[in-house]
Amino acid sequence: MIRFDSDYMAGAHPEVLEALVRTNMELTAGYGNDPYTTEAKELIRKATGCADAEVMFLVGGTQTNATVIDGILSRHEGVLAAESGHIAVHESGAIEASGHKVLTLPHYDGKVKAEDVEQFIEEFYADETYQHMVAPGMLYISQPTEYGTVYSLEELKQLSEVCHNHDIPLYVDGARLGYALGAESADFTLKELSQLADVYYIGGTKVGTLFGEAVVVTNRKLLKNLFSLVKQHGALLAKGRLLGVQFTTLFRNGLYERIGAHGVRLAMRIRKAFERAGYEPIIDSRTNQQFFRLPNSVIDNLRQEASFDYWGPRGEVDSVVRFVTSWYTTDEDIDKLEALLGL
Amino acid sequence: MIRFDSDYMAGAHPEVLEALVRTNMELTAGYGNDPYTTEAKELIRKATGCADAEVMFLVGGTQTNATVIDGILSRHEGVLAAESGHIAVHESGAIEASGHKVLTLPHYDGKVKAEDVEQFIEEFYADETYQHMVAPGMLYISQPTEYGTVYSLEELKQLSEVCHNHDIPLYVDGARLGYALGAESADFTLKELSQLADVYYIGGTKVGTLFGEAVVVTNRKLLKNLFSLVKQHGALLAKGRLLGVQFTTLFRNGLYERIGAHGVRLAMRIRKAFERAGYEPIIDSRTNQQFFRLPNSVIDNLRQEASFDYWGPRGEVDSVVRFVTSWYTTDEDIDKLEALLGL
Amino acid sequence: MIRFDSDYMAGAHPEVLEALVRTNMELTAGYGNDPYTTEAKELIRKATGCADAEVMFLVGGTQTNATVIDGILSRHEGVLAAESGHIAVHESGAIEASGHKVLTLPHYDGKVKAEDVEQFIEEFYADETYQHMVAPGMLYISQPTEYGTVYSLEELKQLSEVCHNHDIPLYVDGARLGYALGAESADFTLKELSQLADVYYIGGTKVGTLFGEAVVVTNRKLLKNLFSLVKQHGALLAKGRLLGVQFTTLFRNGLYERIGAHGVRLAMRIRKAFERAGYEPIIDSRTNQQFFRLPNSVIDNLRQEASFDYWGPRGEVDSVVRFVTSWYTTDEDIDKLEALLGL
Amino acid sequence: MIRFDSDYMAGAHPEVLEALVRTNMELTAGYGNDPYTTEAKELIRKATGCADAEVMFLVGGTQTNATVIDGILSRHEGVLAAESGHIAVHESGAIEASGHKVLTLPHYDGKVKAEDVEQFIEEFYADETYQHMVAPGMLYISQPTEYGTVYSLEELKQLSEVCHNHDIPLYVDGARLGYALGAESADFTLKELSQLADVYYIGGTKVGTLFGEAVVVTNRKLLKNLFSLVKQHGALLAKGRLLGVQFTTLFRNGLYERIGAHGVRLAMRIRKAFERAGYEPIIDSRTNQQFFRLPNSVIDNLRQEASFDYWGPRGEVDSVVRFVTSWYTTDEDIDKLEALLGL
Repeated sequence: MIRFDSDYMAGAHPEVLEALVRTNMELTAGYGNDPYTTEAKELIRKATGCADAEVMFLVGGTQTNATVIDGILSRHEGVLAAESGHIAVHESGAIEASGHKVLTLPHYDGKVKAEDVEQFIEEFYADETYQHMVAPGMLYISQPTEYGTVYSLEELKQLSEVCHNHDIPLYVDGARLGYALGAESADFTLKELSQLADVYYIGGTKVGTLFGEAVVVTNRKLLKNLFSLVKQHGALLAKGRLLGVQFTTLFRNGLYERIGAHGVRLAMRIRKAFERAGYEPIIDSRTNQQFFRLPNSVIDNLRQEASFDYWGPRGEVDSVVRFVTSWYTTDEDIDKLEALLGL
Repeated sequence: MIRFDSDYMAGAHPEVLEALVRTNMELTAGYGNDPYTTEAKELIRKATGCADAEVMFLVGGTQTNATVIDGILSRHEGVLAAESGHIAVHESGAIEASGHKVLTLPHYDGKVKAEDVEQFIEEFYADETYQHMVAPGMLYISQPTEYGTVYSLEELKQLSEVCHNHDIPLYVDGARLGYALGAESADFTLKELSQLADVYYIGGTKVGTLFGEAVVVTNRKLLKNLFSLVKQHGALLAKGRLLGVQFTTLFRNGLYERIGAHGVRLAMRIRKAFERAGYEPIIDSRTNQQFFRLPNSVIDNLRQEASFDYWGPRGEVDSVVRFVTSWYTTDEDIDKLEALLGL
Repeated sequence: MIRFDSDYMAGAHPEVLEALVRTNMELTAGYGNDPYTTEAKELIRKATGCADAEVMFLVGGTQTNATVIDGILSRHEGVLAAESGHIAVHESGAIEASGHKVLTLPHYDGKVKAEDVEQFIEEFYADETYQHMVAPGMLYISQPTEYGTVYSLEELKQLSEVCHNHDIPLYVDGARLGYALGAESADFTLKELSQLADVYYIGGTKVGTLFGEAVVVTNRKLLKNLFSLVKQHGALLAKGRLLGVQFTTLFRNGLYERIGAHGVRLAMRIRKAFERAGYEPIIDSRTNQQFFRLPNSVIDNLRQEASFDYWGPRGEVDSVVRFVTSWYTTDEDIDKLEALLGL
Repeated sequence: MIRFDSDYMAGAHPEVLEALVRTNMELTAGYGNDPYTTEAKELIRKATGCADAEVMFLVGGTQTNATVIDGILSRHEGVLAAESGHIAVHESGAIEASGHKVLTLPHYDGKVKAEDVEQFIEEFYADETYQHMVAPGMLYISQPTEYGTVYSLEELKQLSEVCHNHDIPLYVDGARLGYALGAESADFTLKELSQLADVYYIGGTKVGTLFGEAVVVTNRKLLKNLFSLVKQHGALLAKGRLLGVQFTTLFRNGLYERIGAHGVRLAMRIRKAFERAGYEPIIDSRTNQQFFRLPNSVIDNLRQEASFDYWGPRGEVDSVVRFVTSWYTTDEDIDKLEALLGL
């Protein structure tokens, strides 16, 4: 069975696991007060070009989003997000549980447009009852999006500009950031992202670690008590050095980039395989998630030897499916998929 | 340097780590929908004698407490706890952040008394303004307590009885449960605890895993939507099988008991060493945390080659310190400590 | 100046005010423990035909919605509502502040359709990731809606049926309920509403009182600790008898019905006046709110001697406006409006 | 029957009620956008000597405390308060419901000491695990306290100083502020209070209005979005002018001072009556609440013709009771009480 269900099906990248094994019996202080965490923060500051950035490691994506958003917003504010955004759909109401509304914007294959953000804010304050409504207090985007699409540098600049014109922070959910950076079509760098976003996180769970997300706060006016917020949100790992060790490994020798490039390369092989088999992708994703509309008979056939994500019926005899690659996907996996497709 | 600061200074017990390494490249479904998690749940149901218990794995203690308590309480209710309880002091307000008050009871070396619980509830409902106050909706205790003390079976029965007489659940924080079960003086078993508590958790972080706590819900009327609650609290691990693998290892061959016994045995060696050196423990803890009042000069001397937890000054020339053992503490560590004490 | 801005521009209906004046110097217990509150509850139980209903008086609509919804929902649940619903738009995030998501449905002139509710719930549970999303835990509708439209008895039955088939309560926001009951086209009674809804409130603020809303809980399995919830939400009036006195007056001699009928009759006069002047209402509202699209020149002219609510531009030269009547609107007001329209 | 149960047993002071009656049929904009509210704000700014203060009217005390405290605190912060403080005991967990812990200090007949505040803050930041605990983010005191005691000007200065030295705001709950200002022994003025507190509220409910509390924000860096916060907390009155009319009446011609002085004068008559009858007050309250320890036989006798508040047994044959005066208490009431006491 070849598996393309998601990008969190294996443990850690072998280099990451090796580092955990190597350091396993060392004794260090807890809660991130250890040399590995310090080193990882420095490596990330260097990689992002933000010598002053605060870096904080959390365990998972939902808790990271909830902690950062709750820590930024005032009580009367909500967070702007694409209606397809992870926080708007798939976090069991974690944002609302901390007291904040998700203010949804239309999405275009997962992306929001700067002009829609601008329009929302302008119409909001033009409404004379605006104080009876939830004020837009920040913008959340995911890079890449839940549909695998990537904001271009120009789009990021526009979003950053509209946010800063209206004095609200831009927060980027980078759960799969490595696969956006690894996309051939990507025209932005981590350093450029760091200049444009006020806060973002570099996802580890889907890009080589057992777990872990690195929050980077480039706008130091925000999240001044991040440690306590993380603790309050139950997101502080006792053995914090596990995060330090893993991110040190990802960022010391270019592993993060290599993983991103690897996942994307194999995703492009999947894309081409389906194209050759006559199925165009339904979304122009250049990252590690690929979406196809396939005849149900083809799906049934593939399922004999492959697993992937079912997204629902489309028309009478077709369905939409998602194929995901990760650092652990191999060229042999794709060879087998091609064979299944009769190529 | 020998280190007794806390019980979360190393990675995972070698057997646990070995299991993670062995399974690292397997591909499984996420969020606990994997065979290891299923196996771990079964092993725990067996060990606790509760074939019907719901078992759920979370990452850390604070998030476990916040999730369980938030899921049990109605909006107008609070949680009874010792004023020294972890949720009352050291969780950055995580319980209040989910909307609930911690109703504090006096503590006796970390323990609460059934009669105090009874009195609180009786006085509460005897007050005719009780509807203006926060109702006691559950009882939280830790076993062992933050001071290393252990409730006897009789004490647990009394607490369980007073709770059930008043129709409120009893929840037991077992962050260090292994070290209570491993105490020579302990007269309760995991199966007995399961009969008396409505919900409790079996701590992994301090007892052999990299991270992870196993919530056991024996009263199935409670926490019916635990999965969603866990997700909402940001406590759902994407690669859930990491928890399954670790708890399977702890519970398949008695490792959990061995770790508990090991930690306690070395703690008792520390206790005896200090006693021989002329320092009685200030709390009668029979678990892996030991508390002493030492002259500051002795502390300074020990610090040259040992690290431990400083709890604050006591009188003019003394201070209170805590020594903690864990699965990774060795007899050689204690030998060295004895040497430092001049024994 | 004749004023049609809203239905909360004057104090209390003279009969209500007279009762407050008459009882002003009486001394009674606080927080609703007074004979007037008891009497008002009985009158409402009688009017609604629910001898067992719990009745509770709160001060305002937003706090009533927040208290009821927070008291009904479990932590992992949200409230279904029209995207135009008051709780979704104009309550400054009060629902989210208590931790719950508003799950929006399309609206049809303010109303939701039973089939959309059915579809939402079915699709929700058909999605295998539903535990990662916010579960629909209740349905909120307003009767009449924010657009003045009224659910027919048949529509209410359908909504009640779909809710109860899926075991979620139906909650009706009756801020302007009197004006729905007073609509000539209305084919439902208060008693029928009480059979179909699990909880609803009878609005006083816009229908004759200085302030005050009467929550009626017909499904006694819900909101068992309503008093404490009301207190916790800051919605418990110290001088609770002010609410008792006012609702006793509204319900002792048919005043509530008279006010509703009066407001609607004058609203129908407004409607006819605009129709005669050539402007059809843009929404078929038969209650006390009327919506028209008027040329801006007409609006400017009317504004010389009348005030009303501006809802925004429509096209190049038109705008939408809202005219609202209440118990204090007089036939003379409408005569003047007709004159302004050149009738 | 003469009644001394509480200070919210009647409606409004006749002058206040007269103003409500006089203005009842006027039509004004809602939510405080009316000339009466504007006038009341100006009168209060003048009375407090703070030309720049923001003034906002809410309905009741619990909602005022919850709104102000929630609006001031960051997510990781709690509010310091006497363990006897209203927010710590009698608000059904409203503070916790908004996510914040009440950090309790010892009380001395209801008051806190500046040195205890200082000690709490110093010990908090001296604890190296302070980031795991809830940070003290503001101080709440009540003036007068729940026990009728009054902070002297010197005590207020000390509290203000310790707060501002540690950069946390001082918030004063003035539910009964009129009776503190009216105490003969009081040595502070409203203007002085305004210089020392960052925020406070002037209670109306217990001092002459039907309902209503006036929040005064003298530190304009705080609570910048107070209107939306008030709305979100369900504390925004639709017919806001009812609050404007009432507070205009209280502050236009010295009525607030007269009510305070009246209530206190009669409370002092009660005190002297009990002293002459042989019962010293158990708390040295110089405001409108008086506390006595009486033999149960005396209490039973008094209850034949008087009502008052029972605070619980004291010893075998005695109990503690509370007598409260208000603007509606008369000299004849006290004459009758004296007769009951056999004077």
